[in-house]
Amino acid sequence: MEIKKGLEDVYVKETEITYIDGELGRLYYRGYSIYDLAEFSNFEETSYLILYGKLPNIFEYENFVRSLKESRSISNGLREFLKSVKKDANPMDVLRTAVSIMGLEENTHVYSISDQSIVNLISKFPTIVAYYIRLKRDLEPVEPDPELSHASNFLYMVNGSKPSEEESKAMDVAMILHMDHEMNASTFASLVVASTLSDLYSSIIAGISALKGPLHGGANYEALKMFREIGDVDNVEKYILTKLSNKQRIMGFGHRVYKTYDPRARILKTYAKLLAEKKGGEIKKLYDIAEKVEEIGIKYLGSRGIYPNVDFYSSIVFYSLGFEPEFFPTVFASARVTGWIAHILEYVKDNKIIRPKAYYKGEVGRKYIPLDSR
Amino acid sequence: MEIKKGLEDVYVKETEITYIDGELGRLYYRGYSIYDLAEFSNFEETSYLILYGKLPNIFEYENFVRSLKESRSISNGLREFLKSVKKDANPMDVLRTAVSIMGLEENTHVYSISDQSIVNLISKFPTIVAYYIRLKRDLEPVEPDPELSHASNFLYMVNGSKPSEEESKAMDVAMILHMDHEMNASTFASLVVASTLSDLYSSIIAGISALKGPLHGGANYEALKMFREIGDVDNVEKYILTKLSNKQRIMGFGHRVYKTYDPRARILKTYAKLLAEKKGGEIKKLYDIAEKVEEIGIKYLGSRGIYPNVDFYSSIVFYSLGFEPEFFPTVFASARVTGWIAHILEYVKDNKIIRPKAYYKGEVGRKYIPLDSR
Ligand SMILES: CC(C)(COP(=O)(O)OP(=O)(O)OC[C@H]1O[C@@H](n2cnc3c(N)ncnc32)[C@H](O)[C@@H]1OP(=O)(O)O)[C@@H](O)C(=O)NCCC(=O)NCCS
Ligand SMILES: CC(C)(COP(=O)(O)OP(=O)(O)OC[C@H]1O[C@@H](n2cnc3c(N)ncnc32)[C@H](O)[C@@H]1OP(=O)(O)O)[C@@H](O)C(=O)NCCC(=O)NCCS
Repeated sequence: MEIKKGLEDVYVKETEITYIDGELGRLYYRGYSIYDLAEFSNFEETSYLILYGKLPNIFEYENFVRSLKESRSISNGLREFLKSVKKDANPMDVLRTAVSIMGLEENTHVYSISDQSIVNLISKFPTIVAYYIRLKRDLEPVEPDPELSHASNFLYMVNGSKPSEEESKAMDVAMILHMDHEMNASTFASLVVASTLSDLYSSIIAGISALKGPLHGGANYEALKMFREIGDVDNVEKYILTKLSNKQRIMGFGHRVYKTYDPRARILKTYAKLLAEKKGGEIKKLYDIAEKVEEIGIKYLGSRGIYPNVDFYSSIVFYSLGFEPEFFPTVFASARVTGWIAHILEYVKDNKIIRPKAYYKGEVGRKYIPLDSR
Repeated sequence: MEIKKGLEDVYVKETEITYIDGELGRLYYRGYSIYDLAEFSNFEETSYLILYGKLPNIFEYENFVRSLKESRSISNGLREFLKSVKKDANPMDVLRTAVSIMGLEENTHVYSISDQSIVNLISKFPTIVAYYIRLKRDLEPVEPDPELSHASNFLYMVNGSKPSEEESKAMDVAMILHMDHEMNASTFASLVVASTLSDLYSSIIAGISALKGPLHGGANYEALKMFREIGDVDNVEKYILTKLSNKQRIMGFGHRVYKTYDPRARILKTYAKLLAEKKGGEIKKLYDIAEKVEEIGIKYLGSRGIYPNVDFYSSIVFYSLGFEPEFFPTVFASARVTGWIAHILEYVKDNKIIRPKAYYKGEVGRKYIPLDSR
């Protein structure tokens, strides 16, 4: 009996969405290289591509952008909820609960997935996240600005001022790079839920729940914590060696599929560097530490195929763009929600409930003994 | 490349919790036959058994019962939330959101799973469900009664009066029978989340989200809807034939693992019959229809290994005990939560992130064309 622990190398479905070449370190959405999309595309266009399988024409594009813009505001119920949350809550718990409330409010019919729910989810994640960030900072929440793109508006709602072109581009790129990644744990969690024909919100909530974990989308937060803990470039080698000799993991390193440098990390590194040089100070210092961690990490782990992953430099990018570290996973989620939805739509078209087995290795036929004789 | 759609017959872990013999129609929790547990045990004891691997001695039993009793009340935050929910909300959306709020309030540290969170979850599900049922009925919620067992107290909080011994036993048995079922979709969804080292609440929320689906825990609700729709024993054969010729499924029939009569259905049928005879009226009528659906269903589907499953007669049992049909899945969840937790504890002891693959069958290397040239 073969046990497929972690389902390593088990193919659970066919897909036409995303292709990872883990040996060569290449990533394609719908057949388009991630390098091209990062250079030329933006959040809205790549979202459309991932969801619907083709780059939109101008008419489709404008329609999609408009419907996203029109759906950015959140309900009064959600606002009240966000105001009621303690300021030290885990932001992923907040996002998970907020989306659960959205599902409750919409009272979606089981089975059906409306275009409006799709747009709702994609467009409202940033508003929820930014709203809570502002409250946590004791600042007034900022209403969405329909003049701004999805990425720029996200930064605007977080920081209260319009982002520079550089910041806006970095945010677009970061969101594109986080948008989908084939059968990662959070997407797979969403699919397991969707395969019971549960509703879209429930499926997305499972995605958020899985992404929260430090082995998955929580790794960006852990990476920044580590850079801070290290404190200085000169401490890096000692720090890493101590971790490794204690059998601890270097967060932001390693991947089930990539056995080489993650192309997303490569692109994010460029933006992290650019922003670090622009902003200087603490951010430059953290970037320098990260670069050194990369070098030392690869020195000790590279031969085993363990390299920086998406969460390594995204931490510096998100931090430079104004997000507190505990919010990094919520930014990840705000991009990945597109991938979750796309895979759900693809799976339920030809649905089969996802129901594996566990191999029983205990006894059977134990005799029940009444409580007073035990 | 083999695609394991639905992960049929894929073993994702070893387990010492539950063993299903799908050919002979047998089910064991920790090696004890479900027939013995249904006859001699109760919710608390079987919960302990599933969680900790052995029947408790008197000291362990009393301790566990006491801690469950002490944790039954829900927070003011949860009460406020439940009062704010619209009366036509889906009860599983309500439960999912309530548990998300519990997680938010507890602000659990990622990684660690405390005994208190375990007890909290198991003991508070019924309180949440009953509270919302009462509000929905425009009645005052009923506070938990520490004199009563877990199952009796659940019914008491729902109905406002103490259950008869028969009702109480039926509820205990129904909850025991729903408590675990190896790698079913909701348990598996919980594990995918837990495998990222996300927190316990997030994992349980994924379980609730999956259980909601009509192919899984939502089937009991669908079964009762069907019995009502049929309306009369004489309509059964025509109704079933029409469904089958339209390639629709008979809800409460069929199972990934059982290819014969589900032992849980067998036991629940006895209780359904007993309660139906006692209560008469609509319930007796629905029971008679169900029995006929069983007969006709087996006539047409039995040769393909499709038989009544747990959700078939549980619908009649839950209905006789005072639950409105849309609440059936929440009763299922209130029992299954034990199984979810047990499997999470077992899995994370030797954790590996659950991250399968999807087989890419699209193009690669498509050339990006700018928007204005498309
Ligand atoms: C991503 C990850 C979960 C993939 O896990 P996986 O495919 O199941 O691989 P395993 O956890 O079985 O690891 C295989 C080996 O590599 C080691 N390893 C994996 N990632 C490592 C890391 N980041 N640092 C140090 N060692 C690591 C493991 O300790 C294990 O060593 P062993 O064989 O001596 O026990 C894993 O690399 C990890 O935990 N990384 C850190 C968290 C992270 O950055 N996650 C974000 C991913 S985008
Ligand atoms: C439980 C269930 C999801 C298991 O599904 P599965 O193992 O993936 O099996 P499949 O869905 O592939 O079904 C296999 C075949 O049996 C048929 N079948 C399965 N359950 C059926 C049902 N309840 N009524 C009629 N036909 C059924 C399917 O239509 C399929 O036929 P096909 O091969 O001609 O297409 C499925 O039996 C079902 O949908 N049952 C109804 C919902 C229900 O009661 N769920 C609660 C389970 S505890």
